[in-house]
Amino acid sequence: MDSDREALTIGIDLGATSVRVAAWSPRAGLLETSIFPTRIAAGPVAVVDDIADSVAALLVTHGRSRPCVGIGVGSPGPLELPAGRLHAPPNLPGWDKFPLLDELKSRFSHPLFLDGDAKVAALAEFVLGSGREFAVDSLCMLTLGTGVGSGIILKGRIWHGVSGMAAEAGHLTIDPAGPACGCGNAGCLEAYASATAVVKAAAHFPADSLHPPHPPFADPALPLTAGGLAIAARAGDPRAHSIYKHAGRALGIALADLINLLNLPLYVIGGGVAQSWDLFAPSIFEELHRRSYVYRLTASGGAACHAVHGGTRVIPSRLGPEAGLLGACILPFHAPPAHRDEARSDRQPHLRETPS
Amino acid sequence: MDSDREALTIGIDLGATSVRVAAWSPRAGLLETSIFPTRIAAGPVAVVDDIADSVAALLVTHGRSRPCVGIGVGSPGPLELPAGRLHAPPNLPGWDKFPLLDELKSRFSHPLFLDGDAKVAALAEFVLGSGREFAVDSLCMLTLGTGVGSGIILKGRIWHGVSGMAAEAGHLTIDPAGPACGCGNAGCLEAYASATAVVKAAAHFPADSLHPPHPPFADPALPLTAGGLAIAARAGDPRAHSIYKHAGRALGIALADLINLLNLPLYVIGGGVAQSWDLFAPSIFEELHRRSYVYRLTASGGAACHAVHGGTRVIPSRLGPEAGLLGACILPFHAPPAHRDEARSDRQPHLRETPS
Repeated sequence: MDSDREALTIGIDLGATSVRVAAWSPRAGLLETSIFPTRIAAGPVAVVDDIADSVAALLVTHGRSRPCVGIGVGSPGPLELPAGRLHAPPNLPGWDKFPLLDELKSRFSHPLFLDGDAKVAALAEFVLGSGREFAVDSLCMLTLGTGVGSGIILKGRIWHGVSGMAAEAGHLTIDPAGPACGCGNAGCLEAYASATAVVKAAAHFPADSLHPPHPPFADPALPLTAGGLAIAARAGDPRAHSIYKHAGRALGIALADLINLLNLPLYVIGGGVAQSWDLFAPSIFEELHRRSYVYRLTASGGAACHAVHGGTRVIPSRLGPEAGLLGACILPFHAPPAHRDEARSDRQPHLRETPS
Repeated sequence: MDSDREALTIGIDLGATSVRVAAWSPRAGLLETSIFPTRIAAGPVAVVDDIADSVAALLVTHGRSRPCVGIGVGSPGPLELPAGRLHAPPNLPGWDKFPLLDELKSRFSHPLFLDGDAKVAALAEFVLGSGREFAVDSLCMLTLGTGVGSGIILKGRIWHGVSGMAAEAGHLTIDPAGPACGCGNAGCLEAYASATAVVKAAAHFPADSLHPPHPPFADPALPLTAGGLAIAARAGDPRAHSIYKHAGRALGIALADLINLLNLPLYVIGGGVAQSWDLFAPSIFEELHRRSYVYRLTASGGAACHAVHGGTRVIPSRLGPEAGLLGACILPFHAPPAHRDEARSDRQPHLRETPS
């Protein structure tokens, strides 16, 4: 176990805008993080080349004193596993059918672990964040960003389903007649609670009508952001507040579905939009009380709660925007045997009890 | 293993209208089934007394030649596990907080295994029905009856969640502004696709307007049933057909949610309403293609399907109305260790490979 704590991993958070690559050790945490733009126009092979250069540089600096036990990668989806192939990822044009795992493997001699970006974020929250805080064995995390991703941890393991495409909670139907979603469905959670959806809902506001106008920059020429809209809502703009309440209602309906189906002890809201927890959380709990009798029975004060250790919790993420990168870093220690094809399958170090 | 095949179990299917108790052996299947009315008015203790009498009689007849290895019980919910306590079951008035497991334990010296009725039906479908047919390790079954129950089998085990209340797919929200459901929510799957909902949707039809009128008895004085409505639909009554299409759309939306979340290889529709599969299935698949890109990628012919063994299947149940009783019978062989408190926890016979 001590040797694991001295070990090094490399974590790669592949995003549509930028790539983050980090060197990490169980004892020291993040040793160094490298961030560079995702060269979408240059194509997927060029991006993997950029990643390889960055990893090589980190290994030169940090790999001499610590053995690198593996490289973990969090990727946008849809990602087919265990093949490690992408299927028309909406935010990575030109990557359809790209064999990401094979391309990465051809660049590195270290054991390689690939998983979905929201799944590794949930893993980080489970191992290093609220999962550890509340000592649960399962959780579901929703990541509210450009889209809405999610990850489900069941009995300590990421739930992948039969082809790695499980946990698409962003595409739960909230209202079958709701706004169109990029996935082809209408009324998906993502069409209500993503940063994109929140900004879109404000698109019909006159550019200078918010109070204060277009915060935080107060410059109507700058594009409105979800964070700016949150500042307006907190400053008392009722239309901005209403948009967050609307997102909260959609989140409440989706969480009621998740609680009714999975009966997990912990549901975590992460991603950039989660910073507006104060604005949307009341609507979440209103919908949960209405739409989930499992929640009513198991939430604090519920009929069965005294018998149920801890009951059902819905909370904001403890890790913030680092969750995805941290999840990639710890993935080599937590990937299931099926995704450890180059690793020693008889070795399963557990970081859970290790202070970070 | 041979001794397991000669063993006897008792299965109890506790319903709101009747109780079915059966003696079962792996080699011979159902040896004898006893059915008697559920004496709701007499209270839960009287019903458990009736069950105990029936079990004693079956053990006298069948327990001499074969050792009884356990008694399995499928109960309506909400059922809190592992406590085995009911929480205001809508179809069993007067059973709120009833300690069903403790009451049953006080009557029997054999190891006792209690689980939700829809969960044990899913277990039976997994072990003896389509789960075996398609050699999958996970499935989700929806049981369309008076209500809509469901059971989720993940990697060979019933998924219970933290307090036994998982798999309430009947209370997935289909339309947040939809018809009221007994659970306190509005627009639940159960409010569209249960036998109750199907009959209710026809309530505004003039009593003799169906063609043929009120089938199958052609007597307008008899109450309309879901089965009668199906006969009218097949005979060409467009309103009756439209009700089944509406139920199919709701099922399609719920299944899209389940597929997007769980990415399982098999989804099974059972219960009495499933006999009208021909009437509602086209609407299911229309909604699935629209609302689940995971389904589009993994269904037969999907982009990832060739790489994914078997892909995603949605089919009617293979076991029919016996699923719940069979599930109770086999539960002693398949209950997880936590629910085997009186059983030998080092013994986990596997019936999966055994022909029944």
